[in-house]
Amino acid sequence: MSIRVAVIGAGTVGGGVIDILRKNKDILTANAGQDIVLTHVCELNEDALKEFDLSGVTVTQDASSLFNNPEVDVVCELIGGVGAAKTLTLEALKAGKHVVTANKMLLAYHGPELTEAALSGGVELRYEAAVAGGIPIIKALREGLAANHIEHAYGILNGTCNYILSRMTYEGLAFDDVLKQAMDLGFAETPPDLDIEGHDTAHKCQIMASLCYASKVDLESISVEGITGITGEDVEYAREMGYLIKLLAVVRLVDGEIDARVHPALVPETHLLASVRNEFNAIYVQGDMTDATLYYGKGAGRLPTASAVVADIVDIARAGDTPSPPPFHYRNDYPLRDPGLLEGRYYLRLTTKDVPGVFGIVGKILGDHGISIASCFQKDPHGVDRVRVIIMTHESRESSLRAALAEIDAHDFSVEPAAALRVIEE
Amino acid sequence: MSIRVAVIGAGTVGGGVIDILRKNKDILTANAGQDIVLTHVCELNEDALKEFDLSGVTVTQDASSLFNNPEVDVVCELIGGVGAAKTLTLEALKAGKHVVTANKMLLAYHGPELTEAALSGGVELRYEAAVAGGIPIIKALREGLAANHIEHAYGILNGTCNYILSRMTYEGLAFDDVLKQAMDLGFAETPPDLDIEGHDTAHKCQIMASLCYASKVDLESISVEGITGITGEDVEYAREMGYLIKLLAVVRLVDGEIDARVHPALVPETHLLASVRNEFNAIYVQGDMTDATLYYGKGAGRLPTASAVVADIVDIARAGDTPSPPPFHYRNDYPLRDPGLLEGRYYLRLTTKDVPGVFGIVGKILGDHGISIASCFQKDPHGVDRVRVIIMTHESRESSLRAALAEIDAHDFSVEPAAALRVIEE
Repeated sequence: MSIRVAVIGAGTVGGGVIDILRKNKDILTANAGQDIVLTHVCELNEDALKEFDLSGVTVTQDASSLFNNPEVDVVCELIGGVGAAKTLTLEALKAGKHVVTANKMLLAYHGPELTEAALSGGVELRYEAAVAGGIPIIKALREGLAANHIEHAYGILNGTCNYILSRMTYEGLAFDDVLKQAMDLGFAETPPDLDIEGHDTAHKCQIMASLCYASKVDLESISVEGITGITGEDVEYAREMGYLIKLLAVVRLVDGEIDARVHPALVPETHLLASVRNEFNAIYVQGDMTDATLYYGKGAGRLPTASAVVADIVDIARAGDTPSPPPFHYRNDYPLRDPGLLEGRYYLRLTTKDVPGVFGIVGKILGDHGISIASCFQKDPHGVDRVRVIIMTHESRESSLRAALAEIDAHDFSVEPAAALRVIEE
Repeated sequence: MSIRVAVIGAGTVGGGVIDILRKNKDILTANAGQDIVLTHVCELNEDALKEFDLSGVTVTQDASSLFNNPEVDVVCELIGGVGAAKTLTLEALKAGKHVVTANKMLLAYHGPELTEAALSGGVELRYEAAVAGGIPIIKALREGLAANHIEHAYGILNGTCNYILSRMTYEGLAFDDVLKQAMDLGFAETPPDLDIEGHDTAHKCQIMASLCYASKVDLESISVEGITGITGEDVEYAREMGYLIKLLAVVRLVDGEIDARVHPALVPETHLLASVRNEFNAIYVQGDMTDATLYYGKGAGRLPTASAVVADIVDIARAGDTPSPPPFHYRNDYPLRDPGLLEGRYYLRLTTKDVPGVFGIVGKILGDHGISIASCFQKDPHGVDRVRVIIMTHESRESSLRAALAEIDAHDFSVEPAAALRVIEE
């Protein structure tokens, strides 16, 4: 008995899958209870295949030919994007092939439609690799924490952003300098926008929110802020107050509404998430029964990501011909929560002219909006005729804070728009 | 359709299972694809049942009656120990009931025999709760990391020890004082020996080693050191050198031999394991494909442990009537590695008379055994006529180190036996 696998796309992740299926054949056979055999590879770029020993494997450029082939059990969609990848995935599922994908964007945009197709095809759609690469977080949320209502989950889900923030934190480097180095080293994508603007994290946030609450979540409605506005000074001031800055995906259920957001946040330096450095990812999950749990590892890279793809294949093999575990259902219909309703503490950075009375006006505006100051200090950043005012608020409502900041920005003492960063306390 | 559960033992964990099956019924039904129904509770102490609403549940004191009852699908063994628990578990498995247990001692002593019984009964034996309570580490090792050879795993697996070491580290308290407080608060068992002598960790180490390498591991052959010899000075000197002291279960495969050990170790303060404080547990797993991953959470306590038991029940329900994933097999037969073969760095604490020439003699003995000193310092601990010599070695072989220390201890300048702690670098 064996399970036969077709890989579509022999790029970084697909190549890693081909490697693992060969290299770790012994442990895969043992863990799956049967052989896992690579039977087909579909790749348009013939050069990409030169590095692999594909003896005994059928190479094709026609993905559709795989779906009607009774000798294929599992299709791995590893081409990425939402065009051809969507068409092929739907086609495979409808043809009754199990599909394993690492494609976060595809799931974030089309999760419900793909899940429907899997259900009607009587097959599985698995995507462990789509969130946090080599970390088995999808399995933890679907199975390991199955006895829990998830109260909240915070994820560091983009290695590039965490790498940039780590080097700013530990080496005092400027954002632009680290980004340039990362791009030169091929560590960050070029252009880097999908990463540093937070959209890659938002795709994963959407998948986590859907999974945690078994509900449809509109990707475009998720509030997203990236890290391009974070300055070396923010990193330094945050550390003085005992915090590190991390780009987080936040997922919570509050009063029957899903709060799903992506933004940089101040995390206490004693929090385990603060210890997640460089390109590593981690997800901190609060269950109502387990209390806090955390999952850490490499969120990207050829082999860690491929490891998750292959683990999905092993799970499919273990389930055998029998009905597999119920696929993820969108059984709830929770609305997305207005981000303005968030209650929390905020770090504020104001840049004003160095004139008398500014502090008094700022304090009055914040007070008028019900925002109370926990601590503040003023710094003269570069000896120029401007000052930075750094404020940590007490618990405040985001909509009130935004209104207050708009009022402050409108004053002619304001030199730059006020910056606000949320604070995560637990 | 529903799956019917009998709980044997309504103590801390059993009571938590009864609570979760009631309280989180909604999410359990959704995740399992069917109702999970508590049908039977077996408990000898009637008083223990008073706190539960057991309407519709059959209460019995005769566990054996459950095994021949066709209306029971899953038996949860939650009485602990290796006497009655073993008999009942074997009886249940042989009668064709799936068994879920939280009993680490039972598995550490009798894993192969129980696994045999599950195989021949055609049922599942699950024990997610037996290692690290609410953390789904068994699932991660068996399924999430199924595409990996596990290179090594380091676990902080005893909450009491980690709590004691944390308070020694962060509050400068003495071992005896923290232990007494923990016992007074009911946080540590009385007597605490199973925890502080490392045996509880050894049980979990045995289970992890068996799982990681699919091999029988003799519990009694695992080298075990507890934390009773750790002094406040050790904690302080380690910190001065950039390390924290943690009690670790170490599992590695080296040259076809399983290296399984329990001992306190110096962990670099930048290592994620160093950030695991107080009663929390964590397991750091190095896979050949995923690279480093870490799993963190509460390793004990009523609800976190019960959450793991219930997740196992959900998994059994999901598998339905169909053949479940292949149970864990002891397919390999790796010998246990001689602990003396370990190569690593060591922290040494010598206590000697304050006489000239000691340093020279110590240095010569170490050198004669091929042990090279990376750094050292001498402290005068209490103004008495003795000194502490603290040494960090370069990479050394444990058997050579032990021989050198025995030689040093035999000198009449030695006031106390030398203490040696291993250093974990990655």
